[in-house]
Amino acid sequence: MPFTVTVLVRPKAGLRDPEGATVQEALAALGYDGVGRCHVGKVVEFELDAADETAARSAAVEMCERILANPVIEDYEIHV
Amino acid sequence: MPFTVTVLVRPKAGLRDPEGATVQEALAALGYDGVGRCHVGKVVEFELDAADETAARSAAVEMCERILANPVIEDYEIHV
Repeated sequence: MPFTVTVLVRPKAGLRDPEGATVQEALAALGYDGVGRCHVGKVVEFELDAADETAARSAAVEMCERILANPVIEDYEIHV
Repeated sequence: MPFTVTVLVRPKAGLRDPEGATVQEALAALGYDGVGRCHVGKVVEFELDAADETAARSAAVEMCERILANPVIEDYEIHV
């Protein structure tokens, strides 16, 4: 059964996020003053053939730990 | 009033997505065969000071059109 899996990978809180800082500065330079705590991460979306939602989710967790995210410096969030 | 804004930016359907293709090949190489239609985009998250949710959303749309996304080749999705 095909499931659509969406994985959000973000830098862990407290770690340096130069990309987020750059976006925040760029937004401020364009006049958007009320912007704070800007962070940039990535979104990976794919279709996954699995027996059921639980299997799809546990496969996605394994993929995140192995390749989609760097668990040392990144958090991930999985939506199936 | 501070709102947390999450913006997902993805390549438009039908356009070449070499990053997505690479991730899909890497997953296949690790033995995950049931993966298809893999796409990689980015997630931008920030706090935004706005009068209400409508104002926050319309400011976010403007930011996406101006800088966060390239509307020619990317779709964006805003969650406030």
